[in-house]
Amino acid sequence: MITVCVPDETYLPGIDDLGDTVRVLVWNGVDEPPHGVADTDFLVAGYADRTFRAESIEQLPKLTAIQALSAGVEQWLAYVPDGVTLANGRGVHGSSTAELAVAGLLSIVRGLPFYLGEQQAHRWAQSERGEVGDRRVLILGAGDIGTRVAAALDVFGADTVLVGRSAREGVHAIGELAALLPTADAVVIAMPLTDQTRGLVDAGFLAALPDGAIVVNVARGPVVDTNALLAELGTRRLHAFLDVTDPEPLPAEHPLWSAPNVVITPHIGGGTEGWAARGQALIRAQIEHLLAGEPLDNVVN
Amino acid sequence: MITVCVPDETYLPGIDDLGDTVRVLVWNGVDEPPHGVADTDFLVAGYADRTFRAESIEQLPKLTAIQALSAGVEQWLAYVPDGVTLANGRGVHGSSTAELAVAGLLSIVRGLPFYLGEQQAHRWAQSERGEVGDRRVLILGAGDIGTRVAAALDVFGADTVLVGRSAREGVHAIGELAALLPTADAVVIAMPLTDQTRGLVDAGFLAALPDGAIVVNVARGPVVDTNALLAELGTRRLHAFLDVTDPEPLPAEHPLWSAPNVVITPHIGGGTEGWAARGQALIRAQIEHLLAGEPLDNVVN
Repeated sequence: MITVCVPDETYLPGIDDLGDTVRVLVWNGVDEPPHGVADTDFLVAGYADRTFRAESIEQLPKLTAIQALSAGVEQWLAYVPDGVTLANGRGVHGSSTAELAVAGLLSIVRGLPFYLGEQQAHRWAQSERGEVGDRRVLILGAGDIGTRVAAALDVFGADTVLVGRSAREGVHAIGELAALLPTADAVVIAMPLTDQTRGLVDAGFLAALPDGAIVVNVARGPVVDTNALLAELGTRRLHAFLDVTDPEPLPAEHPLWSAPNVVITPHIGGGTEGWAARGQALIRAQIEHLLAGEPLDNVVN
Repeated sequence: MITVCVPDETYLPGIDDLGDTVRVLVWNGVDEPPHGVADTDFLVAGYADRTFRAESIEQLPKLTAIQALSAGVEQWLAYVPDGVTLANGRGVHGSSTAELAVAGLLSIVRGLPFYLGEQQAHRWAQSERGEVGDRRVLILGAGDIGTRVAAALDVFGADTVLVGRSAREGVHAIGELAALLPTADAVVIAMPLTDQTRGLVDAGFLAALPDGAIVVNVARGPVVDTNALLAELGTRRLHAFLDVTDPEPLPAEHPLWSAPNVVITPHIGGGTEGWAARGQALIRAQIEHLLAGEPLDNVVN
C-alpha cells in the first residue's frame, strides 16, 4: 500500500477510487496533521492557493516523490530531501499558458489595445499594421508551452525559432542568443526560473532587440529585469505583454502598471478552469506508475 | 502578347519585368483611360482603396479574366461579363485574417479587455476563467481562413468543427447548423457573403447558441443580423468580436459601439502590411498561367 498526501480536496477526484492499495490523506502542511501522514510516500505539492507548505516536507520522512502541479518548480527545489524525486506539472498548464502567450502576442501585433480605445471613442479608423505571419519570433523554452506557441504561430506563417537550454534538432542553445536577438521581432519567454534564467532578459538582452520588438513573458517575473524593461518601454522602443512580473503581485503604486506599450495580466496563464481536471489526471497517472513500479513522468531532478 | 490593367501602382512590382510578352497599364476606371486599355485581357480589380471602379469593366471588351485581391468577391459578381473568369484573392489575406480571428477569440476567452481595465486601475486581481482548449468552436467556412483558424486552435486542444457549403471529409454542411449550434462555445464566421450567407446569423441562429457563447466575425458584416446580435449582447448572454459590421464603416452614433460584451476592430483582418506583396505574387503567378495557356488559380465562377 502507498500513502498519498494532497494539500486540498481539489485533488481527490480521480484518486478516490483506487481501492485498498492507496491511502489518501489531505494535509496542507499548516493545519493539524491527520493520523498516519508521516507514512506519506507521495506528496502532491499542489498549485496556486492550494499548495502544501514547503517547510513541512521535513515532517514526511518516508517520502519518495513530490508532485508539483506548476510548470516551474523553483520554489520546491530547496525543500526536496536527498533521494526524493521531484516531478513537475508539465501538461497541466502548458496549453492554457501557450494560449495566453499567443493571445498576448497577437493582440499587440494586431493593435487590439489601440482599437479598444478607438471603440470607446466610437472611431472607425483603419491603419495598416503588421501581422505575426511577417515576423520572426524567438521562443525561449522548448518544452510543452514553447512548442505549442511555435506550432500555433507556424499556422500563420511566422518564422519561429525555439531556444532551449542546450542545442538539439530544431532547437537553438541559449548561448546563441546574442546572434539571434537582433533578428527577432518578438521574444516569447516560456522557460523555467533557474539560476541560469534569472535576470536573463536584462538591459543588454533588450538593447539587442530591434526597434518595435515585442517581449512576451508567461514564465516567471524574475526572468526579466523589470527596471531594464521599464527603461525600454519608457522610450516606447519596445512593447511587452506580461502575465508575470517582478515583484508579484504588482503593487498598485508600481510604475509598470502605467508604462507605455505594455499589457499586464495577473499571472493567469495556467490558472484556467481546466487545470484542476488535468492535475487530477496527472496525479492518478503518477500513482498508477508508483503502483506498477514504473518511473514517474515529468521528473525534474 | 497580353494586356494587363491594374488599378494602382501598388500592383506593379513583380510584373514590371515580364518583358515584351506583357503590356501593363495602370487605370482605376475613374481617371482618363490610358491608350490601349480597351485591349485589356486581364484586369486586376484590386483591394480596399486601391480598387478598380466596377462599372468601368464594360469599357474592357476583350477581357478574359478578372483578378480580385479580396477573399470575398460579392461586389464583383454583378459586373463580371458572360464568359469572363473571376478569381479571388485566396491566400492574400487568409493568414492575416485567420490571425485576427484567433487573436479576437483568445482575447475574449482569456478576458484581455477586462484585464486592460484592471491594469488602468492598477489592480492585480486573478480570476479563474476558461481557455479555448476547453471549448468547442464552430468555424463557418472551410477555406484558407477557416482551416488556418482550426489548425491554430487545435494546437491548444480545442474541439474545432469546420462547416462549409457542403459536407465533405472533415467538413460539416451548413444544413447541419441547427444540430451543431447548441453544442458550440464559440462560432467563427469566415464564409464569403452570398445570397445563402446573408443574414445567416439571425435571431434564431443566435438563440440556438448556449449562454456565454462567443461570435467572431472576420468575414462580412451582413452575414450577421446586427439588430439580432445587439439584442443578445444587450442581455449579456453572448459575447462578440467583430472585425466587420453592418453597416460599415460603423457610424459614430451606432449603438453597437457601446454595447456590452463586444470588441470591434475596423475591418483590419486582411489589410496588413504584408498583403500587397502577397497580392503582387498572386498577380505574377496568374499572368504566368495566362502566358502558359494554363487555367488560373482561385477561380470563383
